[in-house]
Amino acid sequence: MPTTDRVLMGPGPCNPYPEVFAAMGRPMLGHLDPEFIELLDETNERLRAVFRTENALTFPVSGTGSAGMEAAVVNFVTPGDVVVVGVNGVFGGRLCDVAARCGAEVVRVDFPWGTPVDPAQLLAAHPNPKLIAVVHAETSTGVRSDIAQLGAEKGEALLLIDCVTSLGGSGVAIDDWGVDIAYSGTQKCLGVPPGLAPLTVSERAIETIVPTPQSWYLDLNMIAGYVTGSGARAYHHTAPISMIYGLHAGLGAVLDEGLEEAEARHERCGRLLQAGLEKLGLELFAQEGHRLAQLTTVKVPAERLPTGMSEGDVRAVLLSRYGLELGGGLGELAGKGWRIGCMGHTARERNVSFVLGAIEETLAG
Amino acid sequence: MPTTDRVLMGPGPCNPYPEVFAAMGRPMLGHLDPEFIELLDETNERLRAVFRTENALTFPVSGTGSAGMEAAVVNFVTPGDVVVVGVNGVFGGRLCDVAARCGAEVVRVDFPWGTPVDPAQLLAAHPNPKLIAVVHAETSTGVRSDIAQLGAEKGEALLLIDCVTSLGGSGVAIDDWGVDIAYSGTQKCLGVPPGLAPLTVSERAIETIVPTPQSWYLDLNMIAGYVTGSGARAYHHTAPISMIYGLHAGLGAVLDEGLEEAEARHERCGRLLQAGLEKLGLELFAQEGHRLAQLTTVKVPAERLPTGMSEGDVRAVLLSRYGLELGGGLGELAGKGWRIGCMGHTARERNVSFVLGAIEETLAG
Repeated sequence: MPTTDRVLMGPGPCNPYPEVFAAMGRPMLGHLDPEFIELLDETNERLRAVFRTENALTFPVSGTGSAGMEAAVVNFVTPGDVVVVGVNGVFGGRLCDVAARCGAEVVRVDFPWGTPVDPAQLLAAHPNPKLIAVVHAETSTGVRSDIAQLGAEKGEALLLIDCVTSLGGSGVAIDDWGVDIAYSGTQKCLGVPPGLAPLTVSERAIETIVPTPQSWYLDLNMIAGYVTGSGARAYHHTAPISMIYGLHAGLGAVLDEGLEEAEARHERCGRLLQAGLEKLGLELFAQEGHRLAQLTTVKVPAERLPTGMSEGDVRAVLLSRYGLELGGGLGELAGKGWRIGCMGHTARERNVSFVLGAIEETLAG
Repeated sequence: MPTTDRVLMGPGPCNPYPEVFAAMGRPMLGHLDPEFIELLDETNERLRAVFRTENALTFPVSGTGSAGMEAAVVNFVTPGDVVVVGVNGVFGGRLCDVAARCGAEVVRVDFPWGTPVDPAQLLAAHPNPKLIAVVHAETSTGVRSDIAQLGAEKGEALLLIDCVTSLGGSGVAIDDWGVDIAYSGTQKCLGVPPGLAPLTVSERAIETIVPTPQSWYLDLNMIAGYVTGSGARAYHHTAPISMIYGLHAGLGAVLDEGLEEAEARHERCGRLLQAGLEKLGLELFAQEGHRLAQLTTVKVPAERLPTGMSEGDVRAVLLSRYGLELGGGLGELAGKGWRIGCMGHTARERNVSFVLGAIEETLAG
């Protein structure tokens, strides 16, 4: 059992809030225990608060963020349905793959990595799509895309967003934006270990749920009988009880601080980090004006590396000497830059000072 | 946050081993951290020990037992494939549903609830199935079925077993039995909270994995790049890190005790419980000679209930007065009996004495 204690500043997971570990260690209840059902209901109510939604069908899917993505697609898409996907990084590409496995006719609209998706181009991509899907906060590039215009002009289409890296960190507003389906993960701005995928589905989207989705495990028709409603709940699968304790506590930490305050803390730390990296003479990758605060992408040109070291070597030194985890780049940034997360309990000014100091020392050789 | 401490003697979850909670509270590593990869490798090695297999592809699926079932089917079955399923309870029925959602031609062979499946009938059900699937330990009825004959006579078919309720409790022997695909859950005899589904796949089965399964999240082609092999691992999805810490510790507890010793403890406690229930004048439901020790089904006729109380009322009293959770019956046993688990850390003689005493007192009114 590793005893190593890291400062987790990669693209996720972050360090969980201390309250979360305490909750996960609580004596466990059964998944049908009335006291657990009450805890689940309260967890879902807290999720509604951070999603900024009134959606009744809001709950944590029993899997990681990618299970949330699959649940968000597989319950709404049948063979031949047109799905428009905006792709400006890895996770947009993954949405195309998942939709294609449901037999969708995928209309893929690409944008340069490091830039946001253009809502107008997505809206013009097909006259009558079943679904328009887009990643709000691209974890691979550190870019935020605007959602509100898509919601306002989606017409008959359902609007699906990935807010894995934005929920709890950057002003997600499901109802105001007109989003129909959204999923997230727990290990980013919510400050909880990975393992659950918060999902929310609008009333309008519920009416279109496929009667028999190709996934039994993620079938919302059946899961709704357990996660919503009053009184006794129908068993579908055994809920990951201790993880839900952890999510309940993580959401409690966020809401006790205040959602706006927690988001402001992410914003403040991210901007401090970005200013500090520029002061070190490093160039940020994501387009200005669309940079996420909670996930920063930065170029690390060869001439800035200590002699004989790759960027991967530098990250290995940061890990072994400082116990500090950064993420490698993806796509254009692979081998040429880093992804630095400042999320959840890790989004503290002291960690920004620490990471900037550690990077400066290590690049100096 | 509930502070209630239950003795969990339903059909799962059980009470986790204390070591498990301690492990889940350890400072978290990232999913690509070399120290975490080492922990994951060791977890998989421990899973091989409890599955009694040499299968390289052995790891915990990032979801609960039902996700394991789906992974076990969706990676091997394509539309039109013949799948023979033995059904003697809820979970056999669920296997049919999952296989049908993959487009399988399901040959369902039913057996009376409370009895085991008959291997000869399964083998005779179709001349050339792609897959034969059966539940080793039916959680809905408390019955154990024999697997070895199926493995010996399966021919070209792949043999898939559900050992959610038997792994770590009743002598699962994947390699000796000739099983190709098996999945389990963590919240039964392994003494870990629910949230992961141990899965093992034989070399022969690996060769038949569907190139693009309909599930992206459960795609073994991609997951294998993360969970197996030496050196750097390809990111697929973020592993549920803290849950894997917990599984590592739970398996450690089982293997420190000794797998045979842990299985013998389950056997001893279950037989004590069953003898005690019969001594109270209650009749066991599962066929003699095929009764699971770790999960006992028992009839509770109306005349044994205190005046005006249903069996559900009695369970509610057990929960509120004793903090003791039993499971309700399913199928024929619904409203007419109980399922009493004695699994993982809960499988202790002291808990057998406790549950028998509590039942006797409560039935006396």
